Amino acid sequence: MALQAEVLYDFTAEPGNNELSVRQGEAVSVLDQTVGGGWIQAQNSSGQIGLVPEEYLQVGDGGGSWAGAFVSDSRGFEAGEDDDGEWDDDWDDQSVGGYRGDDQANEEGGASGRSTHGPSVKISLNKFPFSKGPSPEVFLLAKPPADSRDRLPVYMGEVGAVWLYPSVPLDCLIADPKKESKLYGLKSFIEYQVTPNTTNRPVNHRYKHFDWLYERLLEKFGSALPIPSLPDKQVTGRFEVDFIRGRMEQLQAWMTRMCRHPVVSQSDVFQLFLTFRDEKEWKAGKRKAERDETVGPMMFSLIDPDAAEREATEVEHKCELYSRFTKSMDDGVKELLDVGHTHWKRCTGPLPKEYERIGQAFRNLSAVFISSKYPGEETLTNALTAAGQTYEQIAEIVTQQPQKDLHFLLETNSEYKNLLGCFPEIIAVHKAAAEKLRDTDRLISAGKINNNEKKIMNHRLSCMSHSLQAEMNHFHSNRIYDYNRVMQLYLEQQVTFYQQIADKLRGALSRFSTL
Amino acid sequence: MALQAEVLYDFTAEPGNNELSVRQGEAVSVLDQTVGGGWIQAQNSSGQIGLVPEEYLQVGDGGGSWAGAFVSDSRGFEAGEDDDGEWDDDWDDQSVGGYRGDDQANEEGGASGRSTHGPSVKISLNKFPFSKGPSPEVFLLAKPPADSRDRLPVYMGEVGAVWLYPSVPLDCLIADPKKESKLYGLKSFIEYQVTPNTTNRPVNHRYKHFDWLYERLLEKFGSALPIPSLPDKQVTGRFEVDFIRGRMEQLQAWMTRMCRHPVVSQSDVFQLFLTFRDEKEWKAGKRKAERDETVGPMMFSLIDPDAAEREATEVEHKCELYSRFTKSMDDGVKELLDVGHTHWKRCTGPLPKEYERIGQAFRNLSAVFISSKYPGEETLTNALTAAGQTYEQIAEIVTQQPQKDLHFLLETNSEYKNLLGCFPEIIAVHKAAAEKLRDTDRLISAGKINNNEKKIMNHRLSCMSHSLQAEMNHFHSNRIYDYNRVMQLYLEQQVTFYQQIADKLRGALSRFSTL
Repeated sequence: MALQAEVLYDFTAEPGNNELSVRQGEAVSVLDQTVGGGWIQAQNSSGQIGLVPEEYLQVGDGGGSWAGAFVSDSRGFEAGEDDDGEWDDDWDDQSVGGYRGDDQANEEGGASGRSTHGPSVKISLNKFPFSKGPSPEVFLLAKPPADSRDRLPVYMGEVGAVWLYPSVPLDCLIADPKKESKLYGLKSFIEYQVTPNTTNRPVNHRYKHFDWLYERLLEKFGSALPIPSLPDKQVTGRFEVDFIRGRMEQLQAWMTRMCRHPVVSQSDVFQLFLTFRDEKEWKAGKRKAERDETVGPMMFSLIDPDAAEREATEVEHKCELYSRFTKSMDDGVKELLDVGHTHWKRCTGPLPKEYERIGQAFRNLSAVFISSKYPGEETLTNALTAAGQTYEQIAEIVTQQPQKDLHFLLETNSEYKNLLGCFPEIIAVHKAAAEKLRDTDRLISAGKINNNEKKIMNHRLSCMSHSLQAEMNHFHSNRIYDYNRVMQLYLEQQVTFYQQIADKLRGALSRFSTL
Repeated sequence: MALQAEVLYDFTAEPGNNELSVRQGEAVSVLDQTVGGGWIQAQNSSGQIGLVPEEYLQVGDGGGSWAGAFVSDSRGFEAGEDDDGEWDDDWDDQSVGGYRGDDQANEEGGASGRSTHGPSVKISLNKFPFSKGPSPEVFLLAKPPADSRDRLPVYMGEVGAVWLYPSVPLDCLIADPKKESKLYGLKSFIEYQVTPNTTNRPVNHRYKHFDWLYERLLEKFGSALPIPSLPDKQVTGRFEVDFIRGRMEQLQAWMTRMCRHPVVSQSDVFQLFLTFRDEKEWKAGKRKAERDETVGPMMFSLIDPDAAEREATEVEHKCELYSRFTKSMDDGVKELLDVGHTHWKRCTGPLPKEYERIGQAFRNLSAVFISSKYPGEETLTNALTAAGQTYEQIAEIVTQQPQKDLHFLLETNSEYKNLLGCFPEIIAVHKAAAEKLRDTDRLISAGKINNNEKKIMNHRLSCMSHSLQAEMNHFHSNRIYDYNRVMQLYLEQQVTFYQQIADKLRGALSRFSTL
């Protein structure tokens, strides 16, 4: 008798993808645990055979969690041993019941704004730099890297500290999503073509690769720079044209934002993602990135400012200003998102229904008029019918409008909500460091640090402060660019919308006879 | 001790009009029952003195109803003895508690569509021609009037029977509403100037005179022609500018419709109303009109068709067609009124609130941006503030729009609902007559009528049928004119509305810097 398993969560099979739909509590027979990619071939009581995600099943002895599944995997994958890139092939091919709570937390847009896309074994210790990472004195006393090429220069510009921007801004285009297969055609996924403007040579990436990049960037820069989270995973409908188009648009927005960032875009891991030439280079680069130790708050040791030192109180003051600004903007953005969503609902719900009813009322009245058989009212009845149809068309235009204008306004504001959600943690790291500095005299008298170490710590805090200011300045200039652009897009579409309705009504009006 | 009275209904005094506010159940002292005009001077327990409508008080022995009040009036007015026009001075100066039920029935737009504006003693026996008037045989056998000038000719036109239309259409202009006083300044009312295009000489009329005219027209023509009811009476706020303007507009619409009717406009009573030269002529004319006996279904005896006789079955068939059409149009009109009212509510409620919120969200975001103190974003913040203000202006435009477009669309449709509500009774009169005709053989064998009388009855039914067709044709041609006109007005205003918004948004857009 085959090994039995209990279904832990409902799972709906993607049609044409060799999957098996199962219901929570159902018992299935395990046919093959070696198909890989986190899938198990199972058979239900009706005899149907198909793939079910491992973590949806509790097999025999009580295993079945992600971590358990990996440990028990016959090929024995471990974090950092991901040498064939197969351990998480199904990231974009299934939903993980246990992660639903996380998804919800992300939607709430909490302070971290980060999502946990992979199994927990992949999460670096530095992922939560302040709460779980090294204490402030560790990174305040860390030595700068030996190789000066790794340093991150900060210059004093008109607006204060600024990053060094590349002469040619990096950019990339995501296009041509293709459905590809693995596991001898058993599993399907979408592959996107990503072409950077520097090499103009396309590389292919799946969603899980973007997610890997996100994790690396978050790990390395998350204490200093806002790294916005990726668009959410999705289970059902992930091969539908609209979903693929929407996700590609969101991935493009994310990549564009990362490309625009002078620190992120010049980092080894980001460059690897965009310019690797073959599988070998990709895998070697991945390994190197995953072994990078200058991550989390340690990243501040790379900052190399061309500016005067700053005192702890000044740093704290700046933190306060930035904190207040990002909080206010977060409120403003959420307000706009809120009214935008409400307006979207009205524009796709009651409002077009009302225009449709007006249109129908005109057309009904026209039909009644025609039924009178009174001669010589064709001009009126035709015009009244046309007016009715015009309002029905307006209903349609109103329904489709949010997709044309509100969509971009809300997407941009969602991006900013995402970015702004990263700041509380970034600012907390800086505040903690500044607090530690104010504590140095006590540490010296307690013999925990010496005067030289105090000097180093103060220098490091100053570097951090310049980094934060450079980042705020980067944020501001991007913000000005983005809001200028999105407001123009929005208003252009709004003008077109109202103009189109005015023109349509003018046409309807012209059909009535002038008396 | 003064005579005591109990207050029957709440009454709110019109400020500056010597009135006294009283509450239901309150006891007041009666100071003067001889002020006239349906008013009593009373004093409340606080010592305040003022006028209260007679019928709001139950004086001493339990009198106080309208009829009772008139009968007990020291001057002893009776119907038809209205020689100084004072008996009902207060029609437009108070509400009559007992009539509220009637008002509601009118709002429902029931089959009769008629309102009872005066005390019951003024209502003619012929007012409800079919239900309470003479039975069909009476008017089917009535003799035509001796004086042929009174006859109402019906011609055969391209569309069948049509009324004789005057070569110059009658028209009148209502203007210059003035607050006037009576009873030595104790009572105020509004007097309108009515100027017909025929004499170009203005006459002055109060609401109660329009109401008198309405009653006369209803009495005389109500069985044959739809006589729409007047705008409702109103108690509070009747001296406010908006109310006066609105009522004048509605009285104008009513008069215009009456002027346009070839039968109504040429009638003695209507001509009297528009062209009387002095008080004496007015009073003599009033008396004559009130003594007119050719009213109700008797009016059909005036019809003088230049057409072939019609059989009862043909008449019934036509009644069926007209009934179906007016019913369908009534449904269509009510549907349009319904969606129009819903749309009005949305345009003055949630929709502008949403535009306002969008505007505020933009302005708030602009304020947050300004607080960043980041240099060089004045263009953006100014533009964003302007965009916010634009949406706030749009909110205002949206709120005011229904008054500019929906208002006329709804007014016209209300007028038609009013007109259409008169048809069921008109058609019922015709159907009853046609039924009676089919019964003639039985009546002959029962010796109730002779063959000659049957011939007369058939001739009269035929006259009625031509009258009905002429009226339907009049209705249709007016309907085509009115709906063509109101749809043009509506669409013109809608075009202006959307164009105005498009232009405003174009202005807002131009303030953003082109990148």
